[in-house]
Amino acid sequence: MHSPVEAVKVQRTTANDIVIVDDLLVTEEPLEIRLGHGPEDARTEFRMSVTMRTPGHDHELALGFLFSEGLIDNITQVVRVVSCKDVKPEELGNVVRVELHPSVEVDPRKWQRNTYTTSSCGVCGKTSIGAVSVTCTRPLGAISDLAPELICALPERMRAAQTIFKHTGGIHAAALFNAEGELLVLREDIGRHNAVDKVIGAMLQAALSAEGKVLVVSGRAGFELVQKSAVVGIPIMISVGAPSTLAVQLARERGMRLIGFAREGRYNDYTSVK
Amino acid sequence: MHSPVEAVKVQRTTANDIVIVDDLLVTEEPLEIRLGHGPEDARTEFRMSVTMRTPGHDHELALGFLFSEGLIDNITQVVRVVSCKDVKPEELGNVVRVELHPSVEVDPRKWQRNTYTTSSCGVCGKTSIGAVSVTCTRPLGAISDLAPELICALPERMRAAQTIFKHTGGIHAAALFNAEGELLVLREDIGRHNAVDKVIGAMLQAALSAEGKVLVVSGRAGFELVQKSAVVGIPIMISVGAPSTLAVQLARERGMRLIGFAREGRYNDYTSVK
Repeated sequence: MHSPVEAVKVQRTTANDIVIVDDLLVTEEPLEIRLGHGPEDARTEFRMSVTMRTPGHDHELALGFLFSEGLIDNITQVVRVVSCKDVKPEELGNVVRVELHPSVEVDPRKWQRNTYTTSSCGVCGKTSIGAVSVTCTRPLGAISDLAPELICALPERMRAAQTIFKHTGGIHAAALFNAEGELLVLREDIGRHNAVDKVIGAMLQAALSAEGKVLVVSGRAGFELVQKSAVVGIPIMISVGAPSTLAVQLARERGMRLIGFAREGRYNDYTSVK
Repeated sequence: MHSPVEAVKVQRTTANDIVIVDDLLVTEEPLEIRLGHGPEDARTEFRMSVTMRTPGHDHELALGFLFSEGLIDNITQVVRVVSCKDVKPEELGNVVRVELHPSVEVDPRKWQRNTYTTSSCGVCGKTSIGAVSVTCTRPLGAISDLAPELICALPERMRAAQTIFKHTGGIHAAALFNAEGELLVLREDIGRHNAVDKVIGAMLQAALSAEGKVLVVSGRAGFELVQKSAVVGIPIMISVGAPSTLAVQLARERGMRLIGFAREGRYNDYTSVK
């Protein structure tokens, strides 16, 4: 198991002096996700993807990725998640295998369609949103009427609960809150989409419903983050930074509530006015 | 041609009031990059990748992507770059085709190896760095001795020259400077790697040498950004945010200079002390 942070010596230059100090870096290592069936099952194993991630909660990351990309629908389709041992020593901890129930087919094409690597889906914002809508068979959880004060408070609550950020200043976070503002899940990762996948994986494992929940993300709200939230059915997303055009369009079409620039006691609501 | 920004109405909540205001969003649209030969050449066209990007400088983005991923070595291998017309009306402007010189083979496996989608390359930081080193046949440009004041000034010069950020607050930038601190190329994009690819594409088109140049990036310095800089041969990278473990390891192994947290008159040098 790799540590999520690593110590290095750096030369720090300020207006007054140049000193050599100890610094902590966020660990970045590749993670390969494999998909397959039990060892007695001859159906081919599929090496799904490799993502650069911060080690920790890797099984959740794998589950959340599969769920938010529409490859699995629920946790009962998964028999178990294991860290692969049949790898080179230096790869230990960087390869995860998700073992599916015998009744579940592995369909690489489904994933390729979602990630737009084939031309059949079309290449424009409209078809991107269309592809998400196909995957979203899950009804969107009810939208709670959150008080403005609570909306402003949630990013700060997330930040206060972050552990790695304090030491490195270089990591993204995603957090799930209930409508009362209680923190349910918090995950950090060098990749913003990984942080969201880890939260989604944790929801799956704990059988946490998306209904009435709020997903808070550090940084900006791009299409892919709103897509994950939409597929899982989380009705409200709050981001500290700016959303993109496609993120706003998707949130509006799906009936989600999308908040941006939630900081310093103010925020923008991108879905209440059309 | 899509605009890089789009106007929307948003509901802005502050401590004092709730108002409906006009806001500008950064445009996010998919771009498909196709690779092939002339129309008379029967070799199969390869649909390479689809990336979510901010429209603008798409040809540079395609060229920079191919170059920094090691699929082309120099601009003479490219006959031309065209925006595809044989697409659905709504896809117009979102599909770009790079036509290669007949002598250049399209090798999808090479790209797949680079993006770690096959297992042959191994899945660990060491092999990730190894894969980059194989691609880096280009000698690294000489490292200039930059004055600390100049290092502190460059991110601010980049920010001052950004146009889309001012209006949206939601876009990344990458800029190429010479050792005298003159801004040579600046590109903005919703994806930080796209901004870097656009800069690299512009360098290719203008036959700008990487020697003695400095690449400045908004946000953090992850492995993939340092990788692009290393492949192209830019010897110095300055980031406003934190680097990752793997980014620092790669920069050190390649003999690059990597600066992080360059803001408010200070910075950390991650490669001068080991």
